[in-house]
Amino acid sequence: MGEFGLIKHLTENFELKNPSTIKGVGDDAAILDYKDKQVLVTTDLLLEGVHFDLTYVPLKHLGYKSAIVNFSDICAMNGYPKQITVSLGVSKRFSVEDMEELYAGILLACEAYGVDLVGGDTSASMTGLTISITCIGEGEKGKIVKRSTAKDTDLICVSGDLGAAYMGLLLLEREKRVFNGKDGVQPDFAGKEYIIERQLRPQARMDIVEKLARINVVPTSMMDISDGLSSELLHICDQSGVGCRIYEERIPIDYLTATMAEEFNMNLTTVALNGGEDYELLFTVPLSMNDVFQNLPGIKVIGHITDASLGARIITRDGQEMTLKAQGWNSLSE
Amino acid sequence: MGEFGLIKHLTENFELKNPSTIKGVGDDAAILDYKDKQVLVTTDLLLEGVHFDLTYVPLKHLGYKSAIVNFSDICAMNGYPKQITVSLGVSKRFSVEDMEELYAGILLACEAYGVDLVGGDTSASMTGLTISITCIGEGEKGKIVKRSTAKDTDLICVSGDLGAAYMGLLLLEREKRVFNGKDGVQPDFAGKEYIIERQLRPQARMDIVEKLARINVVPTSMMDISDGLSSELLHICDQSGVGCRIYEERIPIDYLTATMAEEFNMNLTTVALNGGEDYELLFTVPLSMNDVFQNLPGIKVIGHITDASLGARIITRDGQEMTLKAQGWNSLSE
Repeated sequence: MGEFGLIKHLTENFELKNPSTIKGVGDDAAILDYKDKQVLVTTDLLLEGVHFDLTYVPLKHLGYKSAIVNFSDICAMNGYPKQITVSLGVSKRFSVEDMEELYAGILLACEAYGVDLVGGDTSASMTGLTISITCIGEGEKGKIVKRSTAKDTDLICVSGDLGAAYMGLLLLEREKRVFNGKDGVQPDFAGKEYIIERQLRPQARMDIVEKLARINVVPTSMMDISDGLSSELLHICDQSGVGCRIYEERIPIDYLTATMAEEFNMNLTTVALNGGEDYELLFTVPLSMNDVFQNLPGIKVIGHITDASLGARIITRDGQEMTLKAQGWNSLSE
Repeated sequence: MGEFGLIKHLTENFELKNPSTIKGVGDDAAILDYKDKQVLVTTDLLLEGVHFDLTYVPLKHLGYKSAIVNFSDICAMNGYPKQITVSLGVSKRFSVEDMEELYAGILLACEAYGVDLVGGDTSASMTGLTISITCIGEGEKGKIVKRSTAKDTDLICVSGDLGAAYMGLLLLEREKRVFNGKDGVQPDFAGKEYIIERQLRPQARMDIVEKLARINVVPTSMMDISDGLSSELLHICDQSGVGCRIYEERIPIDYLTATMAEEFNMNLTTVALNGGEDYELLFTVPLSMNDVFQNLPGIKVIGHITDASLGARIITRDGQEMTLKAQGWNSLSE
C-alpha cells in the first residue's frame, strides 16, 4: 500500500485529545501550542536484538512499552506527556499485520495516558526492526524537576517496588531457553504474572506526578529508574554535587521478586539496586517533609542526601556501609 | 568510555543559542519555552544501506545532511528550526573518531542555522548505522503554513532549481562503480561541484522563509521538495482538494543539471519533476501577488492551482497536457 498509505492506515485510529495539539500526522511537521507551560522533549531509539527480543516480547507489548518508557522520561521531569512521534524501520520479515499489532500497543499506551500521536515515518530496513520515539510533554513553569538540584539533608524517595522487571526478564529468558524449539510447549507463568507484567507492561508513574501536585510538593530532584536504583542515584549525586546514604532494609521489594531472586540464586539487594526497567520514580524532597512522606502510600523514604565529601553509600541490614556502584542491569546478566 | 561519556564527549562543542532552550542534553528530557509562538515538531529515521551509502557519503556530510533535512521540514511550515535531538545506533565497525566526524557535521548544520542540540542517545547496534533526528521549531501563530490550504487560482512557486541533487547522486554512484576496488584512483568531479554539493550538502531554505516574512507574504500552502516536484505537488493537490497546471518551460533547472541529464541520456523534465532531495520550497500564493512574484530573485512561478475536477497536469513545451505522476526518485533509478 506504499509508505504514505501505510502510515495513514496505521495512524487512523489515533484521535487527537490534547488542546495543545493543533495539527498531528500529515504535514512536514506537527504543530503544538503551549501557552504559559514549558515544553519537554525526550527521545528513544530501540533496536531489535539490542533493546528487545521478539522471541518473547509480543509486538503489541513492545509498542506499548516503547511509548511508556518515553512517557516515563517526561514524568521524571514532573511533567505530563502530551504528544509522540513514532518512526519505524521495518525489514521484509514483518507484515502489515505485524505493524498493526505494534501500533495497537502504542495506541493502548496513548489512550491510557491521554497522549496524541503527531508524526513519524515508516521505511524499509535491511535487517530487523528499529523503533524511534520522541515524546513531547508539558510542565508548569517553576515546577519542572531536574536531576541536578538535590540538596544536602533532602530525603530520598522511591515509588512502587524495585527489581521486579528484571526478575521478569530473567524468567522470560529462562523459559525461552527451556522451550526453544519445542513446538506446542507453552511456558508456564502461573503465579508469576506480576513480574512478567512489570517487564512487558510497565507503567509510567504519572499518577505519582499527579499525587505530588495534589499535595503541593515539588521534588528537589527527580529521575525515573530505567537502569537501576544505584545507577540513577549516582546520576543525581554526580549532577547535584552531593552524596547519599540509603538503607538496604528500606528498599521496597515485592514478595514475588524476593522469591524469584532466591530461585535464581541471586542476592536480592543486588537485584533491587541494579535490576533496571522498573520505571519507578526516584526523587528527593526537603527533610521538613519527613512526616508527610513517611506515611504516603506507594512511596518509600529510603535514605537521605549528604554532603559530597561523604560519598554515595548504602547501609546494609547488619549496619555496614558499602559504596554504591553503577552496575546497570546489563552487567548483571553477564 | 561508556555511553554517557560518549554522549557528553560528542555534545560538548554544542553551545545553547536559543532563548527558547531552557535545558538541553543531560536530563530525562530537554526543557523548551515558547511564549506566544507555536511549536513545530518533525522527525526522521535514517538507516544505512536504505537512506545513505557510506561508500560515497563522508560521515561529516551525512551528519550535516541528516540535520538539514529536518530543518527543511520546519522551514516548509513557514517556521524556524530551534532545537534537535540526535539518537544513534552504532555497530562495532564504527570508531569514536567516526562518531566525532558525524557530530562535526551536525554541529556545522546547527551553527549555520542557529539550532540547539538538546538530547538524544547512543547505543550499540547489531549492524550498520542508524540515525534518528527530531527537530523542534517555532512559527508565528496564524502564519504557520500547511499543505492542505492551497486555493483555486493560486500561483505555484518554487525556490532555487530542481533535479541537481539527483544528478549529483547519479554521478556519485557512477564514480563509485567506476573506481570500485581501484586503490589510489580518485573520482574526478572537476566542474561538477555544484551537483555534488547539492547532493551532499543541501541547504534548508530558511532564507526563503525570512524573505517571505520581510515582504509580508504568508503562502497559502507549502512543502519542501524531498521526493520530487511531481510527488510533492500531488500531495498539495490531494490534501487541499484542488488541481494544478504547471508549465514545463518554467521549471527552474541549472545548466549543469541539464548537461548531466544529457550525459546520462535522461529526459531533463523527468529529472526535474522526479529527482528528489533538492529541499527547495514549493508553495502557493494568491493570484493577486503575481506582480511581486514574477520578479522575485530565486523564486519561480511555475503554474497555478485549479479546481480539483481539472486534475493535476503539466503543459509541455509543445503545448500538450500530460498528467503528473508521483514517481519519486527511487523509481527513477530502476
